Amino acid sequence: MGSPVHRVSLGDTWSRQVHPDIESERNAPSFDVERLTHILDGGAENSALRRKVERIIHSDPEFSCQDNYFMTQNERYEAAMRKRFHIQMIAQRLGWLEGGRELLYAYRAVSGDLALSLHYIFMNALKSLGSEEQIAKWEPLCKEFQIITTYAQTELGHGTYLQGLETEATYDAATQEFVIHSPTVTATKWWPGDLGRSTTHALVQAQLICSGARRGMHAFIVPIRSLQDHTPLPGITVGDIGPKMDFEHIDNGFLRLDHVRVPRENMLSRFAQVLPDGTYIKLGMAQSNYLAMVVSRVHVVQGEVLQLLQKACVIAVRYSVIRRQSRLRPSDQEAKVLDYQTQQQKLFPPLAMSYAFHFLALSLLEFFQHSYDAILDRDFSLLPELHALSSGMKALVTDFCTQGAELCRRACGGHGYSKLSGLPSLVTKVTGSCTYEGENTVLYLQVARFLVKSYLQTQVSPGSTLQKSLPQSVAYLAKPDLARCPAQRAADFLCPELYTTAWAHVAARLIKDSVHHLQTLMQSGADQHEAWNQTTVIHLQAAKAHCYYVTVKSFREALEKLDNEPAIQQVLKRLGDLYALHGILTNSGDFLHDGFLTGAQVDMARTVYLDLLLLIRKDAILLTDAFDFTDQSLNSALGCYDGNVYERLFQWAQKSPTNTQGNPAYEKYIRPLLQSWRSKL
Amino acid sequence: MGSPVHRVSLGDTWSRQVHPDIESERNAPSFDVERLTHILDGGAENSALRRKVERIIHSDPEFSCQDNYFMTQNERYEAAMRKRFHIQMIAQRLGWLEGGRELLYAYRAVSGDLALSLHYIFMNALKSLGSEEQIAKWEPLCKEFQIITTYAQTELGHGTYLQGLETEATYDAATQEFVIHSPTVTATKWWPGDLGRSTTHALVQAQLICSGARRGMHAFIVPIRSLQDHTPLPGITVGDIGPKMDFEHIDNGFLRLDHVRVPRENMLSRFAQVLPDGTYIKLGMAQSNYLAMVVSRVHVVQGEVLQLLQKACVIAVRYSVIRRQSRLRPSDQEAKVLDYQTQQQKLFPPLAMSYAFHFLALSLLEFFQHSYDAILDRDFSLLPELHALSSGMKALVTDFCTQGAELCRRACGGHGYSKLSGLPSLVTKVTGSCTYEGENTVLYLQVARFLVKSYLQTQVSPGSTLQKSLPQSVAYLAKPDLARCPAQRAADFLCPELYTTAWAHVAARLIKDSVHHLQTLMQSGADQHEAWNQTTVIHLQAAKAHCYYVTVKSFREALEKLDNEPAIQQVLKRLGDLYALHGILTNSGDFLHDGFLTGAQVDMARTVYLDLLLLIRKDAILLTDAFDFTDQSLNSALGCYDGNVYERLFQWAQKSPTNTQGNPAYEKYIRPLLQSWRSKL
Repeated sequence: MGSPVHRVSLGDTWSRQVHPDIESERNAPSFDVERLTHILDGGAENSALRRKVERIIHSDPEFSCQDNYFMTQNERYEAAMRKRFHIQMIAQRLGWLEGGRELLYAYRAVSGDLALSLHYIFMNALKSLGSEEQIAKWEPLCKEFQIITTYAQTELGHGTYLQGLETEATYDAATQEFVIHSPTVTATKWWPGDLGRSTTHALVQAQLICSGARRGMHAFIVPIRSLQDHTPLPGITVGDIGPKMDFEHIDNGFLRLDHVRVPRENMLSRFAQVLPDGTYIKLGMAQSNYLAMVVSRVHVVQGEVLQLLQKACVIAVRYSVIRRQSRLRPSDQEAKVLDYQTQQQKLFPPLAMSYAFHFLALSLLEFFQHSYDAILDRDFSLLPELHALSSGMKALVTDFCTQGAELCRRACGGHGYSKLSGLPSLVTKVTGSCTYEGENTVLYLQVARFLVKSYLQTQVSPGSTLQKSLPQSVAYLAKPDLARCPAQRAADFLCPELYTTAWAHVAARLIKDSVHHLQTLMQSGADQHEAWNQTTVIHLQAAKAHCYYVTVKSFREALEKLDNEPAIQQVLKRLGDLYALHGILTNSGDFLHDGFLTGAQVDMARTVYLDLLLLIRKDAILLTDAFDFTDQSLNSALGCYDGNVYERLFQWAQKSPTNTQGNPAYEKYIRPLLQSWRSKL
Repeated sequence: MGSPVHRVSLGDTWSRQVHPDIESERNAPSFDVERLTHILDGGAENSALRRKVERIIHSDPEFSCQDNYFMTQNERYEAAMRKRFHIQMIAQRLGWLEGGRELLYAYRAVSGDLALSLHYIFMNALKSLGSEEQIAKWEPLCKEFQIITTYAQTELGHGTYLQGLETEATYDAATQEFVIHSPTVTATKWWPGDLGRSTTHALVQAQLICSGARRGMHAFIVPIRSLQDHTPLPGITVGDIGPKMDFEHIDNGFLRLDHVRVPRENMLSRFAQVLPDGTYIKLGMAQSNYLAMVVSRVHVVQGEVLQLLQKACVIAVRYSVIRRQSRLRPSDQEAKVLDYQTQQQKLFPPLAMSYAFHFLALSLLEFFQHSYDAILDRDFSLLPELHALSSGMKALVTDFCTQGAELCRRACGGHGYSKLSGLPSLVTKVTGSCTYEGENTVLYLQVARFLVKSYLQTQVSPGSTLQKSLPQSVAYLAKPDLARCPAQRAADFLCPELYTTAWAHVAARLIKDSVHHLQTLMQSGADQHEAWNQTTVIHLQAAKAHCYYVTVKSFREALEKLDNEPAIQQVLKRLGDLYALHGILTNSGDFLHDGFLTGAQVDMARTVYLDLLLLIRKDAILLTDAFDFTDQSLNSALGCYDGNVYERLFQWAQKSPTNTQGNPAYEKYIRPLLQSWRSKL
């Protein structure tokens, strides 16, 4: 099949000389890698378009990432702004549409290293919470970058708990304006991306006060910087929040508002309105204001987070066939580290997740699109499930992508600690996703509340309407359950029906257990809030098991659709099996607890799991090649397609400012130190 | 008892106004915090000396860390060199001795933010591997900093597997010199600290070739930079390896040697010598060359790594009594996040480890000192156990310190992602320890080999000498074992005898299981190397359980020595119980597998565990105060003693270069972007 040209790194002389240790991995593939790439892209025409966009981006030096690891925060910010500017110019020139595939592929090519991405969060919120008139007014201004926007929710003292936000928007009927104000230090908006030095407008979440009554959180469009000279407008104090673990290219900012006035029309009013006289009209559920967050969580699951894990897998797996260490037998040459069982155990579960979450994101997106349209039309029946599902999948995917990326980084030993490997920044970036758009523990507990409600619904008389109307993701709670796993021999654990059922059993048992503990505490006199808090560790465990079940089921369903691709189906099924069994083995206590599995059955599962590692080993390089990341977007000395790891690491290090700039410390400290002993003579 | 003055941050105006939410945590303490500090310091006089040193360091502006989070790699390096220089000047002036407590406390006060720490690794290696004459020659040069040294072992293509190192030292009898040479790119020494821009000499590990025979790894003292002008000597190519995940203050370097000649006397020769005519004489075991690494691992366990976890706990626990989020009951004010069970579940196991590993390090050090002296005298009988114990404890402690620090960071939500919290750099620093001084998976597998041997020793006829001579850390393998845990009710799980026995049972069962799998594979025809590789995942599990058992036992023994401190013993016992039960609950499958525990017993353990969280909650702030870190050494906007989190975060952010430097991106990109729509009109 040959290596598609686009994979070749432009600047490197080695890139046409593929290292034999990686070339041999690509001989005699057991499946068509190019075909798998097309499946991942959603069709061959998408792959072709993506590669075309990648060529445009990578041939333009404005988009180079190669000095990223040597830059200061200010330099990273300026470079990200430069890239945003040039992407928009290209988009204008070539007619790439907002929301179209070309821009999506361009973002992928520059590895998300762009400023002004909050502009799109603002637009999503506008479309979710704004009236049709508001959308018609503001969306064109955004699309043309006549204004640059952000979404300002989190405060210095308040995060996930929206009701606790302190910023106030008090309606003044006399002028038909809202007065937006930060009453305390802790009310300072803190974290919004692009706010620190870039945006002209912010969508500010604030407590609405009208006619003397507090009406909860609402969203207000607030101009913050002059469109003439970019200086902060009167009443606005704005700046950057300083250095972070990653996202140095983004100017996350702070914002204090001192009685800033905006017109009545600037409150987004799809689900609530304030009339000129101050009358408050509610048009949606109390939760409808959270819709913008639901949208954001769905975007997290299908967005960059998964690419970060996939890239970590590509880098670590490629490096692991070049790196040789120790001998399997005294007479052999040193072995590729990927041939060690422990290395396979580290890398293949994350690789399996890289595929599992791809298919999960597709099915979540499908459910989202279906329910979102209904919600915009004020049919809220699917909102609770959409909320639970998007929360749970956001938490699970970001947790596992973070763990997996760090596993990949560590599996590369010392070189995984060098920024030039690309892995440290993948890890420090992805770990942020466990916190932003809803902290994961809080999200899991929101899933748990949904599970408790759903479980109680199953306890009404069987066959009643309530029971029948269980949301689809928890339908298993009403199904008959096996008390014992029927597996007789190891190979039975390769049956998707068997392990999906096992996950359903464990999730159902843990949910039941959590409800039981909650009810027991309440019966013994605890009030419901205290009882909830004292059982949250148990609820957390149940919610995690439920979410794992959802992902196992989704992967299985995706694989069933690949019947016409038997070779690819076979290799992906191994990943699906591995994913399910990995979860069973790392949580074996939950399966053994009530005797659903016996110790002997756990051993069978382990046998199958270890055999799968060996099978996946043969296809590992191909499975990572299939993601089809360019060398430039990987930006890793360890992970390039050609496998020339050590030469590249050595060369890249020479360009570091630690080598190219002088060493003033010698004259100042080293020489005096070396000579200090003379003073004692 | 009042707040000791030294805890007060010097520059901040808030530090004498303690936030009421943290002040209330310190009222009516259930034990004497100052007394616990003394125990941790090893005596009140040590605490006093430490505080005296801290005052000296913190009153000297040369040692300020406050701009660390805003600095480039080059600036961090220069600052670390400045601090090293000034510490040595103070040490000279005040007569602080090398290896004395004052310097140790000074390092703690500057949070390890010092250059030239490899100098001490060199000295340790010299003392472990050098002859008396060599020590007499080189040690004084080091102590007076007439030379600056490093330890150069790892190569670009070779890490943990020493036999794979490529650097060669060929003996030339004609000149009585060794010719040190890097034959390939992958032989380039890579990673040694201080090498990039600072050191004058390196201890180079190289394959000794004499009289045509390869004799394995030996250590050679090689001058690399001119003592006159610091330029690289002939044949030396040296530089910095570039940006890393952390340790920016250290110039980790690379080194290529092109036939560099050093005199015969420069090979360290305690355990092996080359005579003038090229005759090779071996004086120790093959493993004795690894002694320097054993020493380094013991130093990792008792060194800075644990402090990184302790600091993360201090910061996260303090922040968690200031941060309020959501209401436990609708009528309450927002609750301190530390009152949430899930927050306690995140923070208290790491807090328990902060204490567990303190006592573990003490007992490991005791065993080390005892066996090290014997080894230097060429009595190698304790080396296998010392090697296994130091490897296992290094792996366990660094793994858990890394996990724990990241848990603490994430428990602080968004602010834990800001570098100003101090947490990102604690995490990125501690995670390096999982890789350096022996990659943890490799170390665990070395423990596993020791366990397999020890287990087979128990299988000889009972009561024989071999069985009696089992090393103390694995003596439990020969002891009679319970088949079932005798716990009848939840409170039984508070019995140290009960849970220590449970850990011994599980470790022994997993070791037996791993040997069984190994032997089965070999009986079915696999050779021993293949059989080993195909069972390493199982061996890993066994080694981890064994190591956990060792730590549970060590904590228990340390607590037994506190009988004369009942109040402190009580509060620490809760941590010991929590540590043991946390391990049981997160590995419950291992305990349920053979029916040692029943599901009902696991539930009892969980009940006790959840109760312990509530009990520890009351003492949490005091338990972190007891570590007695100064605000300056924490260098955290979230973790200061006074609890004034939000004001400090806001003020520190103002000093960021992202606010103090201009924004050239506005004229270059933002303004043109905002005006680009006009071009379409």
